[in-house]
Amino acid sequence: MAAQLLLGKPLAEKIKAEVSQEVVDLKAKGVSPSLVAVQVGQNDASRVYTNAQRKVAEATGIKYELQELSADLTQDQLLEHIAGLNNDPNVTGIILQMPLPPQIDPKVVQWSIAYEKDVEGITPTNMGLVTFGKPRLVPCTALGAFELAKSTGVDIYGKEVVVVGHSDIVGKPAALLFLNAFGTVTISHIATGQRGLSEYHVRRAEILVVAVGVPHLIKGDWIKEGAIVIDIGINATKDGKIIGDVETEVAAEKAAWITPVPGGAGTATTAILMKNTIEAAKWQLEKKGSGIITG
Amino acid sequence: MAAQLLLGKPLAEKIKAEVSQEVVDLKAKGVSPSLVAVQVGQNDASRVYTNAQRKVAEATGIKYELQELSADLTQDQLLEHIAGLNNDPNVTGIILQMPLPPQIDPKVVQWSIAYEKDVEGITPTNMGLVTFGKPRLVPCTALGAFELAKSTGVDIYGKEVVVVGHSDIVGKPAALLFLNAFGTVTISHIATGQRGLSEYHVRRAEILVVAVGVPHLIKGDWIKEGAIVIDIGINATKDGKIIGDVETEVAAEKAAWITPVPGGAGTATTAILMKNTIEAAKWQLEKKGSGIITG
Repeated sequence: MAAQLLLGKPLAEKIKAEVSQEVVDLKAKGVSPSLVAVQVGQNDASRVYTNAQRKVAEATGIKYELQELSADLTQDQLLEHIAGLNNDPNVTGIILQMPLPPQIDPKVVQWSIAYEKDVEGITPTNMGLVTFGKPRLVPCTALGAFELAKSTGVDIYGKEVVVVGHSDIVGKPAALLFLNAFGTVTISHIATGQRGLSEYHVRRAEILVVAVGVPHLIKGDWIKEGAIVIDIGINATKDGKIIGDVETEVAAEKAAWITPVPGGAGTATTAILMKNTIEAAKWQLEKKGSGIITG
Repeated sequence: MAAQLLLGKPLAEKIKAEVSQEVVDLKAKGVSPSLVAVQVGQNDASRVYTNAQRKVAEATGIKYELQELSADLTQDQLLEHIAGLNNDPNVTGIILQMPLPPQIDPKVVQWSIAYEKDVEGITPTNMGLVTFGKPRLVPCTALGAFELAKSTGVDIYGKEVVVVGHSDIVGKPAALLFLNAFGTVTISHIATGQRGLSEYHVRRAEILVVAVGVPHLIKGDWIKEGAIVIDIGINATKDGKIIGDVETEVAAEKAAWITPVPGGAGTATTAILMKNTIEAAKWQLEKKGSGIITG
């Protein structure tokens, strides 16, 4: 079998079109979605992301502001800054750019973001809602992987799903999204590899999601005939190429669908960030006067 | 192999002794742990639980109050009542007894409990912290299953763990606890069964946790030689016996460790509720003046 390519771009375009329409609808209700990205210190890699964010935000009608704070900011000062954004009714979404300088504990600051403005889906409350199968704001890459798999038309119910990598931001939420769609989900990770059982689990995966960050960790001939393969890995080689966590070319001989790298799951991430920005603005609208979470 | 019995009572006794000491320490700091159980309407089954709660609370030095509210309470009235408990500095833990009358949506009310008083671990914030591997207040039965498995001395790292059942309150948090201890975790459920793959997954489980509520769903000869089997199921038969989700007697011929039913995982639940009550009181102490979650 020669796999069909599972491209991120059509998904991104579809989401952007939906977001543009939602922005129009929200503005008609008097709500202007407004995204603030907070960056502490200069970072060239981060600038690639923030430029992409600004471009997609502005293309869909979302106000975008990059706030560049001093690299010697203390954690308390940053917490105070985030609290200000939490309380500002004109800000509907908050992004905290990584990395942060060493004097700041990322988790403490991330978790201080008001959950209904947490467009990256990184607060405990939002992760709990994902776990309960009542997601509101889901980490973008995990949601992108799930949406890409669904875009093949597969019925996830009862499928053998293997997620390789158990990061808080990709592997775990992706696994939970597939679980709540009634996939039979296995989460494999470094300890699985050390036991020599990664290949065993990958070989039985009907849907395989890989988010590790190790180039060509997953051998192409491990892929099950007819599988859907979502490769989140983006690794730069010495000679300047970008390759995934999966041996894409060999894997494509067995998979039914496979994401190219680049051009796969990651491509939809920024569009999903805007989708989350809309969801956040709606959530804040619902919450007015209620004060409780509505799942 | 004839399995060793994995009894809940020694774990419960150990936890109760620890809790009693912690209560003494907290009182020395001026904090009196105080648990309020809210019950809406009369319920005989619920009374079995609340009586057990009172007994263990009082034995460990925790103040316990059962508040029985009228069965015709509206959801808004119950939310207001919970808000009052959230704001009462003399209440350190809140239990919402199930079932609730039909006019009330359980999730809405459960999720309105202040997360640092949520001793049942049912709020999105606490579930998110479990997902992130930074647990504070964990659903009692799930934590009991995890602690019982650990009490065998097994090293969970790299073990093949299969959790049968994906409820919000047992299966999912149990799976996440084992995952964060670096088990390779598979979550199997009704869709797995409908695909005919339950047996396949159970047969390869080195640690098996079953929380479904179907008597003898898991056949004894499916158990892997040397496995640890934690059976959460408590099912009443027509002739008044209590049996588990696993065919315990047959399974015990192959397992290294197995929980009896009754007398297994469920036995530690109330003690763990008191452990959570202590954790909640400590969390509130830490939070004073900080206002942010400290994982």
